Amino acid sequence: MIEIERKFLVKNETFKNEVFKKTTIKQGFLNSNKKRTVRVRLTDEQGFITVKGISSKDGLSRFEWEKEISKNEAEALFNLCEKGMIEKTRYLIKVENHTFEVDEFYGENEGLIIAEIELNHATELFAKPIWLGEEVTGNIKYYNSQLSKHPFKTW
Amino acid sequence: MIEIERKFLVKNETFKNEVFKKTTIKQGFLNSNKKRTVRVRLTDEQGFITVKGISSKDGLSRFEWEKEISKNEAEALFNLCEKGMIEKTRYLIKVENHTFEVDEFYGENEGLIIAEIELNHATELFAKPIWLGEEVTGNIKYYNSQLSKHPFKTW
Repeated sequence: MIEIERKFLVKNETFKNEVFKKTTIKQGFLNSNKKRTVRVRLTDEQGFITVKGISSKDGLSRFEWEKEISKNEAEALFNLCEKGMIEKTRYLIKVENHTFEVDEFYGENEGLIIAEIELNHATELFAKPIWLGEEVTGNIKYYNSQLSKHPFKTW
Repeated sequence: MIEIERKFLVKNETFKNEVFKKTTIKQGFLNSNKKRTVRVRLTDEQGFITVKGISSKDGLSRFEWEKEISKNEAEALFNLCEKGMIEKTRYLIKVENHTFEVDEFYGENEGLIIAEIELNHATELFAKPIWLGEEVTGNIKYYNSQLSKHPFKTW
């Protein structure tokens, strides 16, 4: 399917007062090429393998295919991933009729907090909470596949 | 899991008299790096996504993880694959207590026929049918991931 997403920096940690769900995420890449990424993810409860295509020119939409796998399978596939695993906490926050996913990164990406919102179409309106900062949709350096190779602390 | 396989060229087409199963296979690669390949496969009946690791030094064993996916999912993922799809017919042939998989390639790899046998351990004995030719176990140019980039007809 095609996903439409917008991505923003986060100004401060006040979003943490509004969280309704929280999970830790560890992920690595079997391919971090911009044309096709293959990601292995482990959350508190599940594993996933996810394939994403190249982004549209406006950076908004991207083919995404995902399959749930066991946590053990995810751990086994981590051994094959490229160097540079990503570790983060994901917070879910409901703002009116949308849900923001806010990722707080650790390790080599400590200090980076990114919010994403999934939309039904490219021009859909949504409420912007006060903690939402600069938009970085389509900026490749904020892709997780790039953060694994060129982490925030090295910028 | 770790797979132990030996791979051989095939001398002639007499193997076709002994086939008990036959399927067409189309496959592409989301990553054809030797350290980790990610393959998408479509057979007559099923789709698969398969991740393989680097081969052992003797070329015999390799980590392999595979998940069945729908035929539609495989078709969708083909759009993201690297250039150089592989098309082949796979014949299954029972020789005493082992099964050979014989792949007859088409397109840019026409003329190439390869037989593989899966073993339980590296030194396991097996009967060699008369059509079995030179062993090419561990020879990287016969990997499907390499045949997709450097096909047989260009050798």
